[in-house]
Amino acid sequence: MEATLRDDVVVASGDARQRFHDSRGYGRARGAEVTLARIEAAHLLYRGDLESVDGSGFREFFTRSVAEGKRFAARFLVYADLRERGFYVTPDRDGWPGEGADPLPDLTVFARGEKPGGDVAYRIRVAGEREELPARDLADLSLAVVDEESEVTYFDCAAGGGFEGDTEYDLPRSLDADLLEDRVVCWDPPESLYESAFYGQPIAGRDAAVVAGLQLSLLEAADLAERGTVALDPDAVVERGREVEGSRFDRRLTVYRRLRDRGVVPKTGYKFGADFRTYDAVESVADLPHSEALVRVVEPDHRFHPRDLALDVRLAGGVRKRMVFALAGDDSVAYLTVARLTP
Amino acid sequence: MEATLRDDVVVASGDARQRFHDSRGYGRARGAEVTLARIEAAHLLYRGDLESVDGSGFREFFTRSVAEGKRFAARFLVYADLRERGFYVTPDRDGWPGEGADPLPDLTVFARGEKPGGDVAYRIRVAGEREELPARDLADLSLAVVDEESEVTYFDCAAGGGFEGDTEYDLPRSLDADLLEDRVVCWDPPESLYESAFYGQPIAGRDAAVVAGLQLSLLEAADLAERGTVALDPDAVVERGREVEGSRFDRRLTVYRRLRDRGVVPKTGYKFGADFRTYDAVESVADLPHSEALVRVVEPDHRFHPRDLALDVRLAGGVRKRMVFALAGDDSVAYLTVARLTP
Repeated sequence: MEATLRDDVVVASGDARQRFHDSRGYGRARGAEVTLARIEAAHLLYRGDLESVDGSGFREFFTRSVAEGKRFAARFLVYADLRERGFYVTPDRDGWPGEGADPLPDLTVFARGEKPGGDVAYRIRVAGEREELPARDLADLSLAVVDEESEVTYFDCAAGGGFEGDTEYDLPRSLDADLLEDRVVCWDPPESLYESAFYGQPIAGRDAAVVAGLQLSLLEAADLAERGTVALDPDAVVERGREVEGSRFDRRLTVYRRLRDRGVVPKTGYKFGADFRTYDAVESVADLPHSEALVRVVEPDHRFHPRDLALDVRLAGGVRKRMVFALAGDDSVAYLTVARLTP
Repeated sequence: MEATLRDDVVVASGDARQRFHDSRGYGRARGAEVTLARIEAAHLLYRGDLESVDGSGFREFFTRSVAEGKRFAARFLVYADLRERGFYVTPDRDGWPGEGADPLPDLTVFARGEKPGGDVAYRIRVAGEREELPARDLADLSLAVVDEESEVTYFDCAAGGGFEGDTEYDLPRSLDADLLEDRVVCWDPPESLYESAFYGQPIAGRDAAVVAGLQLSLLEAADLAERGTVALDPDAVVERGREVEGSRFDRRLTVYRRLRDRGVVPKTGYKFGADFRTYDAVESVADLPHSEALVRVVEPDHRFHPRDLALDVRLAGGVRKRMVFALAGDDSVAYLTVARLTP
C-alpha cells in the first residue's frame, strides 16, 4: 500500500479507508480516501502496514518528519506507546476526531473500547525531558514526558489542591516572644498552641524540665503576629523573612495563611524537599495523623523542568501524599495537583 | 551555681569541674575551674543545672548569644539534640577535647560510652535550612541541618561513589546511525549492543515487527561515536548535546564516560529526578538487576541547598539506592555519597 504526502497530511486510497480508518481508528475519512497525520502514517510504516509514502520507507519518512516537524520524535514515541497499550489515539488537529480542547494539546486518547470520536480518556501534552513547561498551562491535562533515552512517563495534572480543612482551635492573645535570627521563640505559651493548633516546636524534647519555650518558624510567627497571638510587630517578622529568603517568603506566607484560613495545618516540608506538608484535620499533636499533601510554592509564571517534576511526584508517591504546586501571586493562589499516571 | 562570661567562654568554679566536666563531659578543665563554650553553658542553663551566667538566666543568655554568635541557635539545637541522644559532644574549638579536623567543623561527637577526647563518632557541620553548602567541603563530614521549624536532620557525607563496575562487553564498529533532533537512532544494530552492553532503547516494544532501530541518547551516542561503534562524527553529536543542554552536556558526558570506563553502566535517572541510575554488573538486560546508585552531576564548585539535598537523599533512600553527587570538572570527577544518618 502506497500513500502520498499532501499539505502535511498523508493521503491513502484503495482499501486504506477500510483497513486503517474503519477497522483500526487511524486518520480521518474523506470519501473513499483516508487522511493520516504524519505520526499515524509513520506508525503504519513502522508496523509494516503501509509500505511507503511517496516511495519512502519508515526510516526516510521518520527522519524527514523529525527534521520538519516540531517534537515529531517525541510525539511519535508517545503515540506508539499509547497504541501499544491498546488505546485509539488521534493527533489533536482542527477537524480531527476528538478535537475540542483549547489550546489543543498534542494527542487525544479515547477511553478503552471507544473509537475515535467517542469518550475521551486523556488529553495529552507531549514534552521532551529538556523542555520547560509553563505550570499554568497544565491544569486538567495529562502530560507525557519523553526522557533522553526515549522512555515515556505520564502525569495527571489537575486544577485544585484537594484540601479539606477541618482543624479547629482558639488562639490566645499577646504572648511574649523574641525574634531571634531566623526564628522566633514564644515563652511560656499555653500548651494548646502546640498541642491543638500545631504551631511551632517545643524548644527541646525530653530535657525541657525547666525552660518552656515554643520555637516558631518565621512563617508561623508572621501569621501569629498578624492574628495578635504573639506580641511582635508583624511587619518586623515579615521583614526578617524577606532578609533571609527574599520574595519567596511573601509567596510562602500567602499560601501558609490561605491554608490556615481553610482549617488546614501546614508544617514544614523540608524533609520531603517541599515547602509544606499539610494536615487536613489535627485533633491533637499527640494523636497526629499522617500528613496528606506536600506543597511546593512557585511563582504564577513558573515553568517546570520535567526532571524536577518527576522528582517531586515520585517522592510524594513514595510517601503516599498528594503533590500540590501552589502558584502564588500577590493576591491569588492557584493549586495544581500532579500525580503519576499509568494509562 | 553561678558562672561568668570571659573572652567568649563561660568560667565556672566551685564544684563545677566535678559536676559538669568530670562526671558529665561538659567543657574543658582548667585547674579547679571549668571552661564552658557558650552552647554548653546555654545547655546547662536550659536544664537548670546552672542558675545564671553573670546574672542572666537561659532566655537572656540564649537571646544575647544568638545576637552575638553566628548560627548560635542552630548549633545549640543540634548540641541539645545529640546530648539527648546520649552522646558526649564538644564544640570544635582549638584546644578543646576532640579538636583535630581541618577546617574545624562545628561539633565533635564521641562514640557511645566514650568521654570527650575518646573515639570520635561524628564530626558535625551544622547548617541552617537556608544556608548554601559548598559540596567540596562536605567530604567525610556529617551534616546536621536545622530546618525552619527547628527540627534536625543528619546526613553522612562520604568521599567516593562506591562504584564496583563489573560489566563486560565487546562493541561492534561503524554502525549506521542518524542524528535526529535530540536523539540518535542506530539502524539494525547487533542485539548485543542493547542486550549485553545496555546501550539505548529499542525503537519500540512489542510492535517492532518490521523496523529494527535502537534509540540512543545523545550521551550514549557521543560515547559510542568516540569509540567508533556508530558511524557518526563525535564532535557533531557533542555539538548537538551542547545545543540542547549547554555546558551541562559536557559535564554529564565526562561522568558518563568515566563510569563506562570502570565497567559501570549509567542509564538515565530521569524517573528519579537524577542524571543517572547505575548498574555495577549487567549480564543481560533480560536479567537486569536493580540499579544501585543515583548520580546527580554538578559543577565542582556546586553549593547545595539543604532542601534539594534532603529531596535527593530521601528519594534515593526510598528506592534503596545510594545517592552520589559527581562533582565534574573538565578533567576530573570527584564523587560524594550522601546518606541519611541517625546518630
